[in-house]
Amino acid sequence: MITKELLDPESIVIVGASNDTSKPGGKVLYNILKNNFAGKIFGVNPKEREVQGVPCFANCNLIPEVSLAIIAIPANQVEAVMRILAYEKKCKAFILFSAGFSETGAEGKCLEKRCVKIVNDVGGTLVGPNCIGVITGTYKGVFAGPIPAYDPKGCDCVSASGATMVYILEMAIPRGLKFRDIFSVGNSAQVGVEDVLQYWDETFDEKRSSKIKLLYMEQITDPKRFLKHARSLVNKGCRIAAIKSGNTEAGSRAVSSHTGALAGSNSAVSALFRKAGIIRCYSRVELVYVAAIFTIPPLKGDRIAVITHAGGPGVMLTDILVKNGMKVPQLQGDKAAMLLSKLYPGSTVSNPIDFLATGTAEQLGEILDAVENDFEEIDAAVVVFGTTGMWSVDDVYMLLHEKMRTSRKPIFPILPSAIQAAEEVSHFQSMGHVNFTDEVSFGYVLSRVNKMKPPFPEAVLPKIQQAKAIEIIDQSPKGYLQPGQVFELLQSAGIATVAQAVVTSKEEALLSANELGFPLVLKVSGILHKSDSGGVVPGITSFQLLETVFEKLIAMPGANGVIMQQQLTGSEIYVGAKAEDKFGHQVLCGLGGIFIEVFKDISSGLAPVGRDEAISMIRHLRSYPLIKGIRGKEGVNEELIVDAILKISALLQMVPEITEMDINPFIGNSTSLIAVDARICIS
Amino acid sequence: MITKELLDPESIVIVGASNDTSKPGGKVLYNILKNNFAGKIFGVNPKEREVQGVPCFANCNLIPEVSLAIIAIPANQVEAVMRILAYEKKCKAFILFSAGFSETGAEGKCLEKRCVKIVNDVGGTLVGPNCIGVITGTYKGVFAGPIPAYDPKGCDCVSASGATMVYILEMAIPRGLKFRDIFSVGNSAQVGVEDVLQYWDETFDEKRSSKIKLLYMEQITDPKRFLKHARSLVNKGCRIAAIKSGNTEAGSRAVSSHTGALAGSNSAVSALFRKAGIIRCYSRVELVYVAAIFTIPPLKGDRIAVITHAGGPGVMLTDILVKNGMKVPQLQGDKAAMLLSKLYPGSTVSNPIDFLATGTAEQLGEILDAVENDFEEIDAAVVVFGTTGMWSVDDVYMLLHEKMRTSRKPIFPILPSAIQAAEEVSHFQSMGHVNFTDEVSFGYVLSRVNKMKPPFPEAVLPKIQQAKAIEIIDQSPKGYLQPGQVFELLQSAGIATVAQAVVTSKEEALLSANELGFPLVLKVSGILHKSDSGGVVPGITSFQLLETVFEKLIAMPGANGVIMQQQLTGSEIYVGAKAEDKFGHQVLCGLGGIFIEVFKDISSGLAPVGRDEAISMIRHLRSYPLIKGIRGKEGVNEELIVDAILKISALLQMVPEITEMDINPFIGNSTSLIAVDARICIS
Repeated sequence: MITKELLDPESIVIVGASNDTSKPGGKVLYNILKNNFAGKIFGVNPKEREVQGVPCFANCNLIPEVSLAIIAIPANQVEAVMRILAYEKKCKAFILFSAGFSETGAEGKCLEKRCVKIVNDVGGTLVGPNCIGVITGTYKGVFAGPIPAYDPKGCDCVSASGATMVYILEMAIPRGLKFRDIFSVGNSAQVGVEDVLQYWDETFDEKRSSKIKLLYMEQITDPKRFLKHARSLVNKGCRIAAIKSGNTEAGSRAVSSHTGALAGSNSAVSALFRKAGIIRCYSRVELVYVAAIFTIPPLKGDRIAVITHAGGPGVMLTDILVKNGMKVPQLQGDKAAMLLSKLYPGSTVSNPIDFLATGTAEQLGEILDAVENDFEEIDAAVVVFGTTGMWSVDDVYMLLHEKMRTSRKPIFPILPSAIQAAEEVSHFQSMGHVNFTDEVSFGYVLSRVNKMKPPFPEAVLPKIQQAKAIEIIDQSPKGYLQPGQVFELLQSAGIATVAQAVVTSKEEALLSANELGFPLVLKVSGILHKSDSGGVVPGITSFQLLETVFEKLIAMPGANGVIMQQQLTGSEIYVGAKAEDKFGHQVLCGLGGIFIEVFKDISSGLAPVGRDEAISMIRHLRSYPLIKGIRGKEGVNEELIVDAILKISALLQMVPEITEMDINPFIGNSTSLIAVDARICIS
Repeated sequence: MITKELLDPESIVIVGASNDTSKPGGKVLYNILKNNFAGKIFGVNPKEREVQGVPCFANCNLIPEVSLAIIAIPANQVEAVMRILAYEKKCKAFILFSAGFSETGAEGKCLEKRCVKIVNDVGGTLVGPNCIGVITGTYKGVFAGPIPAYDPKGCDCVSASGATMVYILEMAIPRGLKFRDIFSVGNSAQVGVEDVLQYWDETFDEKRSSKIKLLYMEQITDPKRFLKHARSLVNKGCRIAAIKSGNTEAGSRAVSSHTGALAGSNSAVSALFRKAGIIRCYSRVELVYVAAIFTIPPLKGDRIAVITHAGGPGVMLTDILVKNGMKVPQLQGDKAAMLLSKLYPGSTVSNPIDFLATGTAEQLGEILDAVENDFEEIDAAVVVFGTTGMWSVDDVYMLLHEKMRTSRKPIFPILPSAIQAAEEVSHFQSMGHVNFTDEVSFGYVLSRVNKMKPPFPEAVLPKIQQAKAIEIIDQSPKGYLQPGQVFELLQSAGIATVAQAVVTSKEEALLSANELGFPLVLKVSGILHKSDSGGVVPGITSFQLLETVFEKLIAMPGANGVIMQQQLTGSEIYVGAKAEDKFGHQVLCGLGGIFIEVFKDISSGLAPVGRDEAISMIRHLRSYPLIKGIRGKEGVNEELIVDAILKISALLQMVPEITEMDINPFIGNSTSLIAVDARICIS
């Protein structure tokens, strides 16, 4: 819970305040004082009566009542101090810099829990421990810099790693990014990323809130709450970019080592982000580029004018945009000719628009006006403009500033001369602009942002036979269900299963064949990996063949029967699900067989998967053309796959005991999709 | 041809010299003077008798003999000046800044050719036109900055775009990269990228030459010469990174617009780079990161210790390394425990090694010593170390400097505090080190560099029946060969083709069936896309079926016969070739059918493809597991595919008239690989 006292404290005490700014308690005081905190501020330090010009008390018993405490003392002294502050000094907000809590083991974990209890007792907020602090509109409660300029429309940030927040700022500030609230939540003992999201969501104000949210996380403790508030924020017009690291085994080893967090499944995180409409980033530089793109009005289309006075960067930018699905349409006709006539000879306007090394601010103005007014086929402009170092490019950047202010179409500035145009770039940024330095990184990230879809709407799931499903589960022991029960459970969700019979004698087999009709597939029952061991025989078209094959299968070691199924024609489709701890279930789909095994061509969504998400899952498969059908070969009815995913989603909702489920395969064609083999495991 | 006069001129004349450093003729003079050129220097300018303190002549007739001319006057005056300089002043080297030549059209192209002729007449060198100039150990002949510090072991560069060279430097210098020779070749009228490579190759000196070469190109004019010298340089120990842009249609439109160059096929360029052992980059930032990695001794293995005082960056770095195939091995046992005991409580050494925000230089020393001496399972270390801004990290960076100097294992520094540790980073770099600022970009690029293979050795090709092949080609009109000739040509290269007969009557069909034996495949002849229209019927197992199918096929509109083939069992394999203008032939392979059509899973090599390259092609297919055989399903004999690629390579060498060739498919299994259908087009 984030209290008013944390956001806008009337008074602050620094416990561990110091004159030494190489200590956290000294540096945070320095930062707060330097940045004009308007409330009362004082320190606690047994050795000082005054620190950096503010009163200092020997211990917490001596201080007046206080709204916010920033604590920078060794872990073993923290609890006692917090008791006094919470219970006696009406303190309702705590920022705990100190390390030495849950990240160090069981003992630290207990200490951390006791501290949280103290804060909860008084309905307060605890940020940290093991964090660098908080920045809000009223104070800079951090000990680590750099301290960004405060901008009410700047990026709101929350980071589970203090150092990473610092290094994000080290990269973002030179790019011209502005910031608003920053929360370094450290061990997230009480306030975690979800709480900050909830606070942003619940206090969102169309006019006053920032619409850019940046997240760095190493775990998602409460994915459902995370989804709820992230999706709500995006639906309110916010744009969220987030890094979730610790995605590999070695990476998550690092995570658990340094914050005691356990990493979730990587594909579940991606599915969660897609569901919420969050752009997933994998590096600081990517996060900073995405954030910078967020500061510019969103694209309304994917058709870009690449404008440059330098050939190469324009070519590289065009390549990366086109490679990633954006368009750089050729410009032709009268209006293009008219524009060309206003540029120096040798210029080209076919897009990229290259107005040569000698190109002027005035010419750039003509180009941007033409993009704005004359070329309907263009949705946005990217301007790459640096300097040879021979003259100032300030006039060009002022022109760019003016056009960015007035143009309906977004204009993205790439100003590559970090050294030679440092002054002009700095002037340009001082007027509130960001700057992208590498055109290819920009182009890649722009295309990612442009591909981003809004959050999937709440899933509307089909009705299933709930009572029947629960009855089956209740009757089954934990572990893998029996084949018959698997099919019954699928049927309870309305999923078609192949007509089959399980037989143990030749006589039964012949009788069943009469009922099922030929052709048949025979499968040995009781043996894992039956395909590999020759336990699956398709193409049984006669009683004679049936007898021979039945005898062969039933004689296999471990066989406890033979499954006889109608042989269907079509393509193999895989649909599955997997319990992902707090994430709920991940639902998976793909073409069966080698497409999954060799090409790892699987889409995933997070249950409950609704119609839009199911369609998106199917269409994101690389093998989607095969589902549509290519070269006259019959495909698979997409609507039936969507239907199956929704039904499975509904089943998972009713029967959360399912830990693992593989329908592998369905056999599908243009008119039917029938489950032929399936495994379900319950817990 | 690159002359001594270009590299180390005794005297330089600036034609168009000026006191105004906002003009190229002023700025280049300023740069040369400022950087202490040791020879004679003077200007030509009708309005001045002295420029920037050096003598200035009214025209070229008045000047003494001179080694190198740097020309910065309008294009229409250039030819006359060059005549005087070349024919009368013994000038042997020309750097031509002026634009307005081949990039502007036919007239400019003629002018450019005449200028080249003048230079060739005197056995001289011409760099440009439309370039920013040349930097060597003796002078800085460029008008555009920034000017990098000269280092004999720094990066050698050649760029076909002056602006791109400038912007590469803008990015590289702040990273600490040092440079040696820089050639901006502009329109490459005489000296192109290939000439610079040839010069570097032919003058390579193990002790004195730089071993890092960076290239920016928009076309490869002479791929064979390019390959020859690039491969030779890499074999001599050089490491080459190159950008070739203009890879998309829109991108190559930009290329042709601004330098008049035509872009080659993108996959042919990649194949060429692989053959030469060049790392292909797609952005300036990637090129700079690769170059910076090149300054550090090469990895001898892929096992990395990630060392940091900041959790998050270590986690993200670990994730990206592991995701891209590197290893971050867990460290355990006595030596790990010993190391841990030397660090502050709460540190972890399991790798990532996190020695906390409070970690000291001394502790970093202990860690790096342990990596060097105690952990055999580690090949290199990456150190991520920034600052909170509370104290100087100079001692840490000095320690890092010392360890990088003495360690046998490579150490890569990632110093993310661009703002707060600017001074310390600058001090660190001043001792000759590079710095990587983003750990993920670094990790990605390191893994790419580590995956890089040495150049493929010269291809040794099998002998083929050359006379027969040439006879077939001589007898055939241009265009697609007749099916019979296609098979004959393949047979001349020793490629097995399926037994088949082309028949036009039922009687012939029955006779041929007797010879070929069942099962058969029948294919209609004379119709394109025969599969799609039902013109291919497999599974003919009886004379009766044969008659029925024959009649159906021969009755299809456009049918001129029926091809009868033995029906083979196995997987479809595709091998093909495509003439790529100056690149020669690109050889392609993949699994047939949907793997090519839907998954675009094709490998390519540049003819002549030798054994190593063929193996690499096959193993880089995503579908390679299917070739090896999975889940008990028979694969395809890899050696037979290699053999087929080599034979096709040999055929292409003998018959360069082949413009296109598709053997689609071969049917392959563990013992045979037989061409079943093929098309060959000749010109």
